[in-house]
Amino acid sequence: MRLPLFSLATLTLATGLCAQSPAPDADTALLRHLYDAALTDSPAYAHLGELVSQFPGRLSGSKKLEGAVQWGKGVLEKQGVDRLELQPVMVPHWERGAPESVRFISSDGKSAALAAFALGGSVPTPAGGLRASVVELHSLDELKTTDVKGKIVFFNRSMDPKAVNPGDAYGGAGDQRNKGPGEAAKYGAVGALTRSLTHALDDVPHTGFTGYQDGVPGIPAAALSTVAANRLSAALKADPRLQAELVINSTWFDPALSHNVIGELRGSAHPEQIILVGGHLDSWDVTPGAHDDGSGVVQSIEVLRLLQAVGYKPRHTIRCVLFVSEENSTNGGKEYARLVGEKKEVHLLALESDNGGYQPIGFQLGNKAGDAPARAARWRTLLEPYRLNVLESGPGGADVGPLIDHGATVGEIITESQRYFDYHHTTIDTMDKVNPRELQLGAAAMAALVYLVDQHGL
Amino acid sequence: MRLPLFSLATLTLATGLCAQSPAPDADTALLRHLYDAALTDSPAYAHLGELVSQFPGRLSGSKKLEGAVQWGKGVLEKQGVDRLELQPVMVPHWERGAPESVRFISSDGKSAALAAFALGGSVPTPAGGLRASVVELHSLDELKTTDVKGKIVFFNRSMDPKAVNPGDAYGGAGDQRNKGPGEAAKYGAVGALTRSLTHALDDVPHTGFTGYQDGVPGIPAAALSTVAANRLSAALKADPRLQAELVINSTWFDPALSHNVIGELRGSAHPEQIILVGGHLDSWDVTPGAHDDGSGVVQSIEVLRLLQAVGYKPRHTIRCVLFVSEENSTNGGKEYARLVGEKKEVHLLALESDNGGYQPIGFQLGNKAGDAPARAARWRTLLEPYRLNVLESGPGGADVGPLIDHGATVGEIITESQRYFDYHHTTIDTMDKVNPRELQLGAAAMAALVYLVDQHGL
Repeated sequence: MRLPLFSLATLTLATGLCAQSPAPDADTALLRHLYDAALTDSPAYAHLGELVSQFPGRLSGSKKLEGAVQWGKGVLEKQGVDRLELQPVMVPHWERGAPESVRFISSDGKSAALAAFALGGSVPTPAGGLRASVVELHSLDELKTTDVKGKIVFFNRSMDPKAVNPGDAYGGAGDQRNKGPGEAAKYGAVGALTRSLTHALDDVPHTGFTGYQDGVPGIPAAALSTVAANRLSAALKADPRLQAELVINSTWFDPALSHNVIGELRGSAHPEQIILVGGHLDSWDVTPGAHDDGSGVVQSIEVLRLLQAVGYKPRHTIRCVLFVSEENSTNGGKEYARLVGEKKEVHLLALESDNGGYQPIGFQLGNKAGDAPARAARWRTLLEPYRLNVLESGPGGADVGPLIDHGATVGEIITESQRYFDYHHTTIDTMDKVNPRELQLGAAAMAALVYLVDQHGL
Repeated sequence: MRLPLFSLATLTLATGLCAQSPAPDADTALLRHLYDAALTDSPAYAHLGELVSQFPGRLSGSKKLEGAVQWGKGVLEKQGVDRLELQPVMVPHWERGAPESVRFISSDGKSAALAAFALGGSVPTPAGGLRASVVELHSLDELKTTDVKGKIVFFNRSMDPKAVNPGDAYGGAGDQRNKGPGEAAKYGAVGALTRSLTHALDDVPHTGFTGYQDGVPGIPAAALSTVAANRLSAALKADPRLQAELVINSTWFDPALSHNVIGELRGSAHPEQIILVGGHLDSWDVTPGAHDDGSGVVQSIEVLRLLQAVGYKPRHTIRCVLFVSEENSTNGGKEYARLVGEKKEVHLLALESDNGGYQPIGFQLGNKAGDAPARAARWRTLLEPYRLNVLESGPGGADVGPLIDHGATVGEIITESQRYFDYHHTTIDTMDKVNPRELQLGAAAMAALVYLVDQHGL
């Protein structure tokens, strides 16, 4: 379905923004070629299989991440690029150590284990573990009015089920994990437990980053599965004198040297101007990281292959960047942006894939003028046949976001992702959760936008 | 993101079509209430669990289907409706009987089993089975130029991977299963094997309807898993004298009495005018039918609950219809439409859910004037916040389609469905393939459209 009035409006806008646009039939045909190439004999799913089976738990500072860096370089090399670079980046190095444990001990002395993962970056418990009474809170604000001194704070606010986009619900509940332990430490708490950030009610804990406040010693922190959180909450209501025992065996090491992997196809007309596609190579230590962000990695590699497979000669340089350390520092993205500033590199578009390898529905785009989605809207009639209907405004992904300050239009692919947070940062973010066609459609969608920007600017 | 020009166009169109539209804020608020109700404490997923666990394999003529009819009636009764009806429908009664088997026998006498299901409606093989040489074809047209007399025809055309919408690929390959055996019989073939209709490469066979030609005796027909089809094809290339052996133990019985389940909320202003939501209760005999179409059933029931839960008093009658025998006759839909004609009932909208309980992305709509999607487009700004971006033209679902001839606007919900045909008509169309939030979002989307049509007409 297309409204006559809408088509007219689109046409008018396109003429206004890009009077020199060439025959739209050429665009239609090229997009079709890109999709055909993506949907037949694509290596993307097999690449994902290699990455998640050979390098699960590829956290910053780990050998698995360095293996993944070499793997990414090898795949790009074999595929064929005009330039390949390993860009040095210093990354944090935190290790979980021996498995953590969280138990609660009733006032009658009975104890029960709770499914939990230490949060990434948590300090360890003292030797022999930590035992204290528990106070359940539902917001960081409650720290101001609750006596948490000497206690373990248990942040148990659920993700809002009413948010249609689960990313909004994740953002809305995320302060408990990101900042909760650090804030609780300021008020004298000795440990922190947080409800896993997911809509799923199951016994799978979700790890993730937590940061402490400068000048305040950190406290040990772990995420409980949603089932464990409900269980602890119920037990606490029945027995307010209940205690919890945490054992976390983590270690902070010195920062480590790692590398962003960069491969590019040189532009024929403006090689100095760059269109970037990227995802992040690292994952949390406990997960295969199939959706987060193995999918983004193999899709970004695949964008270069698709352009080559259809015989397209890009006018600008098309650069694939596999960032490191998104999960616990975004140092890969920050260092990349710093060097862009230093070299005064021009990026027309920096497009990230970090929303899982699900069916794509469109793009989030941001630039300083705030008009990026409106400018891209002239391609609506080209994109809609591929079910790419959404063009939203936003700050881009975590790794490409900093490039907006260097004049780039930044963006990320938007996927249908009700299932994304069911698996996010868990042991079950596995290959079988990724549908090959959905993965390939994401790569095709990215390639389509890259092609359009390369041809017509944004 | 919304384009100023597009907003203007939408506004102009809305004014033109529906000058009497009330305050849009009321619509915005009501849609939000419907979604909130759907996303918190919805019974839809639990209902689906009841249906698929208590009544798997609820094919026309089976006790399971009659159990499902009583279950549907019971759920609607308990939920509370103004009128409840079991509408008699005569349905076909075919049974698979003892498990089928398909083997191939090499010319050196070795034999191997192939994963297969008899097609629904297939005649049985003679006692002791059927053995014949095999000829592989890729289209029905090839029957005209190939000697198939006395042979088993093996239709092995894949679903087109290049189709972005897998429904298009399903439609494109479906003639092999729907009509292939009947056509092959006309040319003297003695049996038929068809490649399962799926993009997935696995050992799961997919059954489905096949129909014979009037006046030509039917031949036994079975679907092979895609892995089995590839295996047979390779074996046949290596050994063209290879034979296949089919054993199918099916029986056709006399048509059986079944019932469409109808529950409705009576309209306050125009009770004689109906807005219908529906799905089909029956499934193939081998499948739990969680996506096909347990999801559509529980979503249709849920639409009535959502309207009640938010305290909405409909102006027109809102009718939920759980059709029977969609899979092997569409007799439920046909009989419903016949009675609509007989009673001269007026349907403003008849909206079906039969594309799986995946994330909804919009609606397909059709009416005689052909302008239904354009008319619904005045609600785009209301629907887009819920990621309902697609309004396409089409003939509605299989059960509501006939109502177009009685003046109705017909439609179906469109879902993101790359995974739908991985499970369709198989043993693995199970509960765990349905995401509760995606299911609930589908029900909310249907309720939203029903509300808008009830308030403003279509």
